[in-house]
Amino acid sequence: MTNKDEIDTTIVTSVAPTASARVQLRPLDATGVVIEDGLLAERQRVNRAVTLLRGAEELERAGTLENLRIAAGRARGSRRGMVFSDSDVYKWLEAIAWEIGREPSAELERLAHETIGLVGAAQEPDGYLNSWCQVVDPAWRWTDLEMGHELYCAGHLIQAGVAFARTTGDVSLLTIARRFADLICDVFGGDDNTGTDGHPGIEVALVELYRQTGERRYLELADTLTSRRGFGTFAGGRFDLEYYQDAEPVREARSIVGHAVRALYFAAGVTDIYAETGDEALLESMLRQWDDLTAAKSYLTGGVGSRHYGESIGDPYELPPDRAYCETCAAIASIMWNWRMLLVTGESRFADLFERTLYNGFLSGHSLDGESFFYVNALQSRTGDRRHTWNPVACCPPNVMRVLASLHHYLATTTDSGIQLHQYASSRIRAVCPAAGPVELAVNTDYPWSGAIEVEVVSTGDAEWTLSLRIPAWARAAILDGAPVEPGSYAELTRNWRAGDKVTLEIDVLPRLTAPNPRIDAVRGCLAVERGPVVYCLEEQDLPAEADLASVAIDSVADPVDHGPVEPLGGVPGVALAGVVRDLERWRQTEYRDLQELPATVSAAPTQLLAVPYFAWANRSQGGMRVWIPTTD
Amino acid sequence: MTNKDEIDTTIVTSVAPTASARVQLRPLDATGVVIEDGLLAERQRVNRAVTLLRGAEELERAGTLENLRIAAGRARGSRRGMVFSDSDVYKWLEAIAWEIGREPSAELERLAHETIGLVGAAQEPDGYLNSWCQVVDPAWRWTDLEMGHELYCAGHLIQAGVAFARTTGDVSLLTIARRFADLICDVFGGDDNTGTDGHPGIEVALVELYRQTGERRYLELADTLTSRRGFGTFAGGRFDLEYYQDAEPVREARSIVGHAVRALYFAAGVTDIYAETGDEALLESMLRQWDDLTAAKSYLTGGVGSRHYGESIGDPYELPPDRAYCETCAAIASIMWNWRMLLVTGESRFADLFERTLYNGFLSGHSLDGESFFYVNALQSRTGDRRHTWNPVACCPPNVMRVLASLHHYLATTTDSGIQLHQYASSRIRAVCPAAGPVELAVNTDYPWSGAIEVEVVSTGDAEWTLSLRIPAWARAAILDGAPVEPGSYAELTRNWRAGDKVTLEIDVLPRLTAPNPRIDAVRGCLAVERGPVVYCLEEQDLPAEADLASVAIDSVADPVDHGPVEPLGGVPGVALAGVVRDLERWRQTEYRDLQELPATVSAAPTQLLAVPYFAWANRSQGGMRVWIPTTD
Repeated sequence: MTNKDEIDTTIVTSVAPTASARVQLRPLDATGVVIEDGLLAERQRVNRAVTLLRGAEELERAGTLENLRIAAGRARGSRRGMVFSDSDVYKWLEAIAWEIGREPSAELERLAHETIGLVGAAQEPDGYLNSWCQVVDPAWRWTDLEMGHELYCAGHLIQAGVAFARTTGDVSLLTIARRFADLICDVFGGDDNTGTDGHPGIEVALVELYRQTGERRYLELADTLTSRRGFGTFAGGRFDLEYYQDAEPVREARSIVGHAVRALYFAAGVTDIYAETGDEALLESMLRQWDDLTAAKSYLTGGVGSRHYGESIGDPYELPPDRAYCETCAAIASIMWNWRMLLVTGESRFADLFERTLYNGFLSGHSLDGESFFYVNALQSRTGDRRHTWNPVACCPPNVMRVLASLHHYLATTTDSGIQLHQYASSRIRAVCPAAGPVELAVNTDYPWSGAIEVEVVSTGDAEWTLSLRIPAWARAAILDGAPVEPGSYAELTRNWRAGDKVTLEIDVLPRLTAPNPRIDAVRGCLAVERGPVVYCLEEQDLPAEADLASVAIDSVADPVDHGPVEPLGGVPGVALAGVVRDLERWRQTEYRDLQELPATVSAAPTQLLAVPYFAWANRSQGGMRVWIPTTD
Repeated sequence: MTNKDEIDTTIVTSVAPTASARVQLRPLDATGVVIEDGLLAERQRVNRAVTLLRGAEELERAGTLENLRIAAGRARGSRRGMVFSDSDVYKWLEAIAWEIGREPSAELERLAHETIGLVGAAQEPDGYLNSWCQVVDPAWRWTDLEMGHELYCAGHLIQAGVAFARTTGDVSLLTIARRFADLICDVFGGDDNTGTDGHPGIEVALVELYRQTGERRYLELADTLTSRRGFGTFAGGRFDLEYYQDAEPVREARSIVGHAVRALYFAAGVTDIYAETGDEALLESMLRQWDDLTAAKSYLTGGVGSRHYGESIGDPYELPPDRAYCETCAAIASIMWNWRMLLVTGESRFADLFERTLYNGFLSGHSLDGESFFYVNALQSRTGDRRHTWNPVACCPPNVMRVLASLHHYLATTTDSGIQLHQYASSRIRAVCPAAGPVELAVNTDYPWSGAIEVEVVSTGDAEWTLSLRIPAWARAAILDGAPVEPGSYAELTRNWRAGDKVTLEIDVLPRLTAPNPRIDAVRGCLAVERGPVVYCLEEQDLPAEADLASVAIDSVADPVDHGPVEPLGGVPGVALAGVVRDLERWRQTEYRDLQELPATVSAAPTQLLAVPYFAWANRSQGGMRVWIPTTD
């Protein structure tokens, strides 16, 4: 059953809904989008110049590439690393594919070509490909669906294959991936093996493979694997059923639970399946789960995952800043899910959460110099955390690379009637939409540091169409061409646009204080500082000499104000806060005191505090950090 | 090298320092102490009537006894349960030994006799005894010191053997234990195997075996195993070195770190080694670690262990109430350590922490009906936790049993000049001290519910001696025979006592509010309720109908008052709190808000709240609980 007529493989983007997909918005052909300047451009530049190349070195150093050589019979030795480490190679390849699509690179192309050759050489005649099984124990194949990550790794192989086919037209990796996918369809598509993977991830990949090839059985397998979840397949496993999203069938699920990355990859896949099948029960579940996530289970940074144990989403309102897990991969999975929810619904709240996660819980996982990473992104550290150059569980670094290399895919979309801008960066955006024909926009802004955004229509077809601009819900105010517009939705301008037309949007990005829901026990009595979409934090090294991160408190009445550029952090804007340093000396060596013994007030000396962007923390010397700051009240 | 002349094996108690030990205080012969009435008597009664017998059933049901039968060749089958499950049998046997010493029981004696026979039958000819090794893999012996728990299990075997020898004179289990201990001395005492156990526990046992037998090499091995720790023996293991107390040599350690039970069992052993060797570096380390624990790493309940991950002590001030681990075994280990620190120093602060832990973090682990247990003792539960009747990791239940069966060991001590009362319960206390000769005291009190304690001298030698009564540091005031005495020390009465003399101590146990150190982020803006040594909590089922545990707040100005008996909890006294129910409706579906959007006040309706003893929570229907209560400020 194929319906290749639905497929348009000329649109290069990481998520490419078919013509019949239930989407309100359509991604652009990303080859026409260039982020030219500003924070996101700098992150893409660093990713290309430093991080992707470092990835090659680290995959070699960790033995991850060597594992494939051993599987291919090109080397001898013992397999090294985690059971799922093949996926690190595939994510890195996917990142290279998007990066090459952005701008050719002989070096990256050579690395990709070599590695794709290696992957092909490692593949078994029947299409199977997994170095753990092939090197360590051939009898292991499909025997440990709970923790073996075979389908998860296959999913990343497929995503990389699709990416190369889209950006370069080279289908060699796609062909490898498809042979494996065909084997998986044969093994899992019928009634012989009714299992599913303990770690979701293959679902998005199979939908994209369907979108790329028109082969409907890939979509059907994605649906089948999804529908098998929720019946206690993993009962008696290492964790409870929620961990694997196996406690409730997805169509009935009321809440988002379990291992954060698994839950969010799964949600991305389910949303994709809805888009291609129109199964409304899936969309309703996704909306319920998103409401649950944003009502009580997500961090101010967009990070998800409250528990180290099981790397999991906790109970509602269980959001400790210090023991926040907020794995970088969970932020990435949330970005993936929110992009798909945005396409499916057209609602700005999904682009808002995409933005919050991008600038905070995601960017925090990558050092400013591109050399190191956070796996865990806590919102408070008493002793200071060190970024790692790689990790025995190396899922996050290449995952960061693929998101950065494809950031430009997520700026804008089209509908029949116009173009929508979701994320703001100085950029060129070429789009085609039925109402307007080919359009080119030039966006000029220093967003997120400035809220001033100028959109120029560089060229357009001669017709009326609508330009929609997201006004973030966090904005206190926004002014579009002189008139106030409502935050939390899209401002729409329907005009007969001409080349040279300019639109000016001014979003209020003044620093502001943010209060937590009183049900979030772990940050009671604290406020956070935000500036535009960027969450700020205090770093120990910026404190007055006599203070520490426990003794400072801020005045909730005084407005935070801009401090000017913080040079050691590349000139990002700092925020100045009025506060005090409290004298906690009488609490030395005492954890708890009879309230009657306490004097009514703690002596406190006024001070000014410098807050810096959370994502930029831990880029100087080691020291503590906190996002939520006690108030003087 | 033996010095049997130092040993007095006629003194029946769980910790029996030698005559030359560096102790300020000496335990009593526990056969002369009877807790007659009140809370502790009831816990001992339930332990005897319900819990110890349930232990026999559960050890059978879990296969723990069957494992020993298989090892003994008396049964066939596969081994079941955790690698360390033999220790569950030994802890349960130790509990029976102390219980028989308290009051004979034909049924318990029969169970013990049968089980000791089984343990002996399972022992290898060379003395080795571990059902995992014997049943699963004989080649495993001493190969997994990090996680194998072989020496840990041996330690519990030794402690049980010592207990039977002391209470019944039956040395059959001691003989088995000693044969194994001799093998361990041969294997680990020299330079052939320089390892030590990943899980401390054998140290206290070896010291007690030395104390029981006079064989100095057991003490020396305890010292050797202790001194080997701190040099990275477990580098490259599953956890970091701190987990195993292997990051710093104990004599240099500045802080208490790692797996809570391991850290505290180790501390108990180190204190015992100090007591018998006089190695001052060990005592200094213990004092530093105790200060570290009580300054920043212990819960109001006395519980220890802030992290589920690694069951570990966290960073200083990292004390989340909801994700508190506070394993029941950690409370028990803390009780063990504090008893030893009390003996060694004679300082009341150790008896204070013993008391805090006993009435809160320890008793919470045992249901009122004696049928079920908590492994984790959180200070907040949003959804309600269920006690378990047993657990795949069944370390806590039999550990609870041995503490309850030996509670009477810990009421009092002697010095050359008198008798010291540390824990108060209606009891008969027979003691012998050089100054007084044989003395019998009758204590009458409803402590901890009442602070009125009457001590009657039932009989005494005709000489002047000193009666010392601990005045808890938590007390706002105390009056001894009409005169105020200072909390936080011992009130001393030196008299020529006569039979019939009575002393009346009145400790203020009125309900009080307790504030946390501002550095403890997780409970900022909250207060706790205490009454005497008992920590209280709110249980969801006691709230007004319109309230939940997040919406209530208490007035920090109004004093909490007695509410009267709470009948569903066996008539324990409740505490009434003036508070409010806050209307949090506008926070529905919203985690974070711009502070400018918030109205200045939240509407709140006055209410009265009922607090119940924390240890008694989760004994009715399932529901949430919190110890730390937000204030209206």
